[in-house]
Amino acid sequence: MSILVVGSVALDTIETPFGRVEEVVGGSAVHFSAAASLFAPVHLVGVVGQDYPVSRLDMLRERGVDLSGLEVKPGESFRWSGRYGHDLSTAHTLETRLGVFADFHPRIPASFRKPRILFLGNIDPVLQLEVLDAVEKPELAACDTMNFWIAGRRDDLLRLLRRVDLLFVNDAEIRQLAGEPNLVRAARWVQERGPTRVVVKKGEHGAVLFDHDEIFFVPGYPLEKLNDPTGAGDAFAGGVLGCLHHVGDISAGALRSAAVFGSAVGSFSVEDFGAARLEILTRDEVAGRVRELCGMTHFEIVPSSKGVA
Amino acid sequence: MSILVVGSVALDTIETPFGRVEEVVGGSAVHFSAAASLFAPVHLVGVVGQDYPVSRLDMLRERGVDLSGLEVKPGESFRWSGRYGHDLSTAHTLETRLGVFADFHPRIPASFRKPRILFLGNIDPVLQLEVLDAVEKPELAACDTMNFWIAGRRDDLLRLLRRVDLLFVNDAEIRQLAGEPNLVRAARWVQERGPTRVVVKKGEHGAVLFDHDEIFFVPGYPLEKLNDPTGAGDAFAGGVLGCLHHVGDISAGALRSAAVFGSAVGSFSVEDFGAARLEILTRDEVAGRVRELCGMTHFEIVPSSKGVA
Repeated sequence: MSILVVGSVALDTIETPFGRVEEVVGGSAVHFSAAASLFAPVHLVGVVGQDYPVSRLDMLRERGVDLSGLEVKPGESFRWSGRYGHDLSTAHTLETRLGVFADFHPRIPASFRKPRILFLGNIDPVLQLEVLDAVEKPELAACDTMNFWIAGRRDDLLRLLRRVDLLFVNDAEIRQLAGEPNLVRAARWVQERGPTRVVVKKGEHGAVLFDHDEIFFVPGYPLEKLNDPTGAGDAFAGGVLGCLHHVGDISAGALRSAAVFGSAVGSFSVEDFGAARLEILTRDEVAGRVRELCGMTHFEIVPSSKGVA
Repeated sequence: MSILVVGSVALDTIETPFGRVEEVVGGSAVHFSAAASLFAPVHLVGVVGQDYPVSRLDMLRERGVDLSGLEVKPGESFRWSGRYGHDLSTAHTLETRLGVFADFHPRIPASFRKPRILFLGNIDPVLQLEVLDAVEKPELAACDTMNFWIAGRRDDLLRLLRRVDLLFVNDAEIRQLAGEPNLVRAARWVQERGPTRVVVKKGEHGAVLFDHDEIFFVPGYPLEKLNDPTGAGDAFAGGVLGCLHHVGDISAGALRSAAVFGSAVGSFSVEDFGAARLEILTRDEVAGRVRELCGMTHFEIVPSSKGVA
C-alpha cells in the first residue's frame, strides 16, 4: 500500500529577489514526492526527456520513492522558468517549454494500480481523469488544479471534481472556480460538486480546511527567511497525504493533524530554492515545527468561571 | 476601575457594494466603546460639534459607557465619508471634514484619570501622548495608529510607542512603520521600540499576536455575509481590552483568550453598517462564536503513538 502521485517532472529556472537557480529538478510530482516520502512509500508517475538529469532524483529514490513509473522519452524535458517579486506571492512565468510533456499520457505500472491514497498533481484534468480510470478506487483521491485549467478546461475539471474526495486549491483559484468572492460560500459550492473536503491554500496566512460541514484553520508557520515559494503547495499536499498514509487514518481529526504537518513541510520548502530544503528535511524537524504551531494556536477561555463564555 | 478610551466621535457616510448609510454615528471611540462595554465599564473622551445627534449614543450610555468626557463644542462635528470596493479590504476616503476635531485636545475629567486600561484610538500621536501625560499610569496602555501618522508624525509616534504596552496595527501599516516586509521581523522591530505586545490585524485572515517572544494566531471568523468593515479594528480592540478588564488578568494566557473574543466581536461588527450590529450584540452571541473559533483551531497530533511527533 502506498501513495500514487501523477504530475509534472520538470527543470525549473527560478528568480526571486533573494537569488536565482537554473534548471533545478522541480514539477508537482517531485515536490510532492519529496515531502510525502518523509512519511510514506510513494509511487511516482511522470515523463521526462532524454536530457533529464535523472540521477538528481536519487534523493527521492533513497527515501523510498518508486520511480519505475517515470517514463524517459526521446525529446526535451519540461522546462519552466519564472520570476517572483518582493512579496513572493505571484510567479511571473518567463518561459514554458513543454517538450515531451506536451504528449503526456500517464502510464500506470500494474504494481501501482492499487494506491491507498492518490494525488493528482496540477496537470490537465483530462489526464487526471485518465489516471482515475486506470487505478482501483483509492481510500482517498486528492487533486490539485490551477487557474489555467479552471478557465480552459472547466467541464473536464467539473467531471474530475465529481470523482475526488479532496481538492487542494488556492484562495484566488477557488473564488475563480466558484465565481464567488466569499470563501465559505465558494468552498460550499465546490463541496456540492464532489469533493467533501477542500483545502484552500492562502500562502503566508496558512490554509482553511473545509471538511464536510466543519472548518479548520491550518496555521501558516511565521517565517523570517523565505527564498522561493515554488512547489510549496505540492510540498504541503505531500505532507498532508504522507501523514494520513503514515497514521493509517483519514478521519476528520487525522486530516486536521495532517494538515498542520503539511503546513510545516510547506514552510520548510520555501526556505531554499526548488526542492533543496525538502531534500535534507527530516521528520524530526517537521515534528518540531508542528509542536511550535500547536503552541501558536492554543488558547483557553480565561477564566471560564467568570461567565464570559 | 474602568477602561478609558480617547478617540474620534464622528458622523460616517459609508458606501459598500452592499448598501449605503448616511451620517451614522462612528469614529474610533464609538466603535471601541460599543464593543468594550459588552464586558467592562468604559469612560469615553472625545469631542463633537453642536450638530451631533448625541441621543444616538444612548445605546452606549445604556451599556454603562460614561460619556461625561464627551465635549460638545460650537461648530461642526467630524464627518467622514468613504467607499469600499468588492473585497471590502480598502476604504477609499471620499471626504473628511474635521470640524471641531481639528482643534481637539483631550480633556480628561478628574474621575477618569486612574484607568486600569487605556485605549488611545487612532488620532494624532501628539494627542495620544497628551493623554498619557494626563492620566496615572494604567495597568495596560494600548494604542492604535494608521498610515497617515506613520508617514507624517513618525517621531511623535516613536515617542508614543516607548510609552505603551500594546500596539494594534494592521499588516500593511506595521510593514510601513518598520520598513520591513517580513511580518515577524517587523513585529520584533516594533517590540524593540516599546510595546512588548503587538497585535497585527489581517482582516479576514484574523490577526497575529506577538507577546514578548511568543506568537499566537488569532483566528478570523469565516463570515458568509459582510456589509461594512468600518470600525472593525476598533471593535476588535474593544473586545480584547473589554475582556481583559472583565477577567482582571492581563497575563499572556488571558490576552490570547481576549484576542479571540475581540476577533469574534470584530466579526459581528462587519455584518451591518457602522456600529449597528454592535449596538444589539450580546455577550452570549460573542461567547457562541468564541466557542466556534475554539473548534475551528483545535487539533491533536494523530496519533502521537505513531512517533510522527
